[in-house]
Amino acid sequence: MYRSHHCGALTATNIGTEVQLAGWAAKTRDKGFVLWIDLRDRYGITQLVLDEERSNPEILEAAKRIGRETVIQVSGTVLEREAKNPNMATGDIEVLVISLEVLNEAQTPPFTIEDDTDGGEDLRMKYRYLDIRRTPVQQSLLFRSKVALLVRNFLAKEDFVEVETPYLIKSTPEGARDFVVPSRMNEGQFYALPQSPQTFKQLLMIGGMDRYFQLVKCFRDEDLRADRQPEFTQIDCELSFVHQNDIMACFEALLSYLLKEIHGISPKPFPIISYEDAIKTYGNDKPDIRFGMTFTELNEIAQNRGFQVFDAQELVVGIAVPGAAAWSRKQIDAWIDWVKRPQVGANGLVWVKCNEDGSYKSSVDKFFDADALASWAKACEAKLGDLILVMAGNASQTRTQLSALRMALAEELELRKPNEFAPLWVVDFPLFEKDDETGELHAMHHPFTAPKPEHLEKLQSDPTSVVAQAYDLVLNGNEIGGGSIRIHNRETQEKMLSLLGFSEADAKAQFGFLMDAFTYGAPPHGGIALGFDRLVAILDGKETIRDYIAFPKNNSGRDVMIDAPAPVDTEQLDELSLIIKPKAE
Amino acid sequence: MYRSHHCGALTATNIGTEVQLAGWAAKTRDKGFVLWIDLRDRYGITQLVLDEERSNPEILEAAKRIGRETVIQVSGTVLEREAKNPNMATGDIEVLVISLEVLNEAQTPPFTIEDDTDGGEDLRMKYRYLDIRRTPVQQSLLFRSKVALLVRNFLAKEDFVEVETPYLIKSTPEGARDFVVPSRMNEGQFYALPQSPQTFKQLLMIGGMDRYFQLVKCFRDEDLRADRQPEFTQIDCELSFVHQNDIMACFEALLSYLLKEIHGISPKPFPIISYEDAIKTYGNDKPDIRFGMTFTELNEIAQNRGFQVFDAQELVVGIAVPGAAAWSRKQIDAWIDWVKRPQVGANGLVWVKCNEDGSYKSSVDKFFDADALASWAKACEAKLGDLILVMAGNASQTRTQLSALRMALAEELELRKPNEFAPLWVVDFPLFEKDDETGELHAMHHPFTAPKPEHLEKLQSDPTSVVAQAYDLVLNGNEIGGGSIRIHNRETQEKMLSLLGFSEADAKAQFGFLMDAFTYGAPPHGGIALGFDRLVAILDGKETIRDYIAFPKNNSGRDVMIDAPAPVDTEQLDELSLIIKPKAE
Repeated sequence: MYRSHHCGALTATNIGTEVQLAGWAAKTRDKGFVLWIDLRDRYGITQLVLDEERSNPEILEAAKRIGRETVIQVSGTVLEREAKNPNMATGDIEVLVISLEVLNEAQTPPFTIEDDTDGGEDLRMKYRYLDIRRTPVQQSLLFRSKVALLVRNFLAKEDFVEVETPYLIKSTPEGARDFVVPSRMNEGQFYALPQSPQTFKQLLMIGGMDRYFQLVKCFRDEDLRADRQPEFTQIDCELSFVHQNDIMACFEALLSYLLKEIHGISPKPFPIISYEDAIKTYGNDKPDIRFGMTFTELNEIAQNRGFQVFDAQELVVGIAVPGAAAWSRKQIDAWIDWVKRPQVGANGLVWVKCNEDGSYKSSVDKFFDADALASWAKACEAKLGDLILVMAGNASQTRTQLSALRMALAEELELRKPNEFAPLWVVDFPLFEKDDETGELHAMHHPFTAPKPEHLEKLQSDPTSVVAQAYDLVLNGNEIGGGSIRIHNRETQEKMLSLLGFSEADAKAQFGFLMDAFTYGAPPHGGIALGFDRLVAILDGKETIRDYIAFPKNNSGRDVMIDAPAPVDTEQLDELSLIIKPKAE
Repeated sequence: MYRSHHCGALTATNIGTEVQLAGWAAKTRDKGFVLWIDLRDRYGITQLVLDEERSNPEILEAAKRIGRETVIQVSGTVLEREAKNPNMATGDIEVLVISLEVLNEAQTPPFTIEDDTDGGEDLRMKYRYLDIRRTPVQQSLLFRSKVALLVRNFLAKEDFVEVETPYLIKSTPEGARDFVVPSRMNEGQFYALPQSPQTFKQLLMIGGMDRYFQLVKCFRDEDLRADRQPEFTQIDCELSFVHQNDIMACFEALLSYLLKEIHGISPKPFPIISYEDAIKTYGNDKPDIRFGMTFTELNEIAQNRGFQVFDAQELVVGIAVPGAAAWSRKQIDAWIDWVKRPQVGANGLVWVKCNEDGSYKSSVDKFFDADALASWAKACEAKLGDLILVMAGNASQTRTQLSALRMALAEELELRKPNEFAPLWVVDFPLFEKDDETGELHAMHHPFTAPKPEHLEKLQSDPTSVVAQAYDLVLNGNEIGGGSIRIHNRETQEKMLSLLGFSEADAKAQFGFLMDAFTYGAPPHGGIALGFDRLVAILDGKETIRDYIAFPKNNSGRDVMIDAPAPVDTEQLDELSLIIKPKAE
């Protein structure tokens, strides 16, 4: 027994008792005749005290030599503190040290182990084990663990069974690149790490498991964008004998349960909007609906009024920015510059100030009179004091650009409140996307997604108009989950793969086992997968996932702490029958 | 809504109600004027009935054409059965079918979907999704899921936090061969899949996480023995500020909790025996203590009595087989042949019948009189009616051989009762094993295991006599877990790696990050890992793990269902800068 209590355990009820504690010396305050040490562990901080009057002089001297982050064990007596700290669980007491043992010395850490550390990102990643000692990171990992357990217990109560699917599987073209694993026992052959357990969970449904879930690592060998990881965790689920609305109800209940357990929030029934409406109203398919600034299409009332910038365009679309009529010209110009940056790529912004006195001031006063601007304001539901911002151009690009602006404005205006949660469903996705250059069809979701039954017959004749039985769960501007009803018969799956450009032989080689399985009594089924890393971050009111992953990789896919990946022995490559290709001259 | 109830839900309380059900047509009985269908899903079986009197003739005809494993949906009325089946949850009722829809046709499955199937292992693996429909496999997977949740909730209550450690790590020589993953972004470099999260969990302790656990997949590229898998699941745990007995107490509580929850058993405090005693008493370090037949060393009383077979040997050792004095000479000879097989490799057996009348009959009557044999019987604690079997030879080999015999006899005598659970701890393992041929030292547990503090000074001078702070949890003859207190300071870890033959440079390259971490305030820590696949099987009274793994691989590491591993495109290899070595001529 190194300790009788954690460092967060002792309160006034323990006064007078003898205790043993162990932990890290987080901070010492040396007043000469008296020394305080903040002893820290995962559970909290307990103040230790030694002084000339009450302590053994040798122990006091030894204690004075203890550096930051030294691991110590003490025994002592719990005393009432003179100066209580109501902000700490242990703030009523301190422990008068009777004996003290240094369990392990510590070098001075390369950055301070404090909530606001002086360590930069790179240093913190290299010494991630020290970074994890910091309360914000530690709390993030504890929070993740808590959410995982809530998810598991909720799903278990709903008759879901957690089944582990294999990690060493077969390379399949599910969108991204696979990581592959050479097989030593099967020369020249490779396993692939799963991008998701998609086919396995469908096989589990065919196997009669009825309701499956798994918190599972998935792998994608993609060029990493910021805040993407080559390995990530999914809450992966599949259900049999369900329609789309059954699945949505089930996972709406899960998210509502999490919001209730974590934040005491009982959300209203989640709004359901179509993909088309999401694009038209928010410019993207994962709208943040915590705030307004919804899109208003102004073609009808703003085109053919002599302002040629608008007239030739496919779309004229505006938003009303609340309270921004008071902005200076300089402020507005800054936003115009912002949308013109290559990352956004817009041509500019037309603006209309809806002044508090009912007058209008705009950048297009030459072309539009007060009545015309009033009709814009009415259409955009702009209030007195709002600023209308209008873009025009190709519909798809303009929506994307205005969406970027809307999100940035919301950020600026602090409308994206981290403790407000606005979930919604986006439904009725197209089954296919068409590559504009090649004309090839790609699956919008994945090749196993079922079309709406009433669209089945259009599959061949008019594939891009086919709507999928697919749905995304969106929270605060993030797609936290997506799923679909799956195809469960061989003919439809064959047709689907053929439309996606698979030859019959390729389809058979890659998915023959699944299509065979469909012929042995596959139940109707569907599922969903939630991105767990992001879900946890958002539920904790954060946007970046890195602190919710214990040992993340950097943007080159490296773990800089352990220095991986790394070269391996030639001997090991020999066993795998592999040669590293010499670099081209 | 495909169904209002599961197939296991309806009882007498539902009589008279209209219900919708969906599932598989497991069996039909056609009496011409009446047809019964057993409708099956994960939750049970409900009997459907259609007859000429009450059913729509078209529906009755359609129902008669339904083949085995067809997926159907019906609506109907719950009726009281005439012939009740008290062995089924739904045995009081049947459902009179009003409407019926075939949701998916099924080919005749390649084996019967029954508890005792006619399908062989290979066929069942190829069609694993059909195998999983069989109740025994399905129940095994459900049981596994249940145990996982029990484990998680128990550990969470004990302040353990589940932290996901990375799967793409660095190749380390932890005993077995690593699976490696070529990195596309870091040319010529490789990740490795973890054999265990050992170093990461130690870093989490250094990071102050205090109590960590994870149910985690681990990977070993070994030539597969029967019932071994290249990927397997561990309950992986680590604790800070603990001694060996703290960890043992914690996981004794876990296993006791599982036995209580699953079987209603409250085991007594687990026996703790030393490695040395385990070897001497049972011939191996994972003894099955559900039965006796413990070893008795007979050197003192059986050597130097004129029987030269014994005299020159290092060890003479016997066991008393309960009730086996009645065996025929033929039966005994069969066991003698059994131990002489190359798999066991013994020279033979000396036997002594302790007859019910108090007389003795032995294979060595020429050399030992009744008094001598009586002294053997006394030493072996043989009762009247027992058979003493004695082996002699090199101590280590003889113990292994006698252990094999003891286990086989217990199997034969049905002493290995699947519903009896006899956990124990084996402790005081040597820190090192010495390779007899090369003289090299190998870590008995792993290179991070701490020696007993009082043996630290012998590390250099007499390493093979050093005892480790290591412990195995053994259940019914299986090692279900093993762990140790870890080294937590740099000097000891360096010394350890040096004794294991690591050069300073190798040690630094492979474990530099860990040894660095030790210098920043590493707490004393230790942990344990339990083999989850096996634990689940044993808790369910089974010995083989295969049915507890949804999609196992065969002994060549192949998934025969999806046909993995498989060749990959040259293009993909190009991206990884790899070439497959042409086969040697």
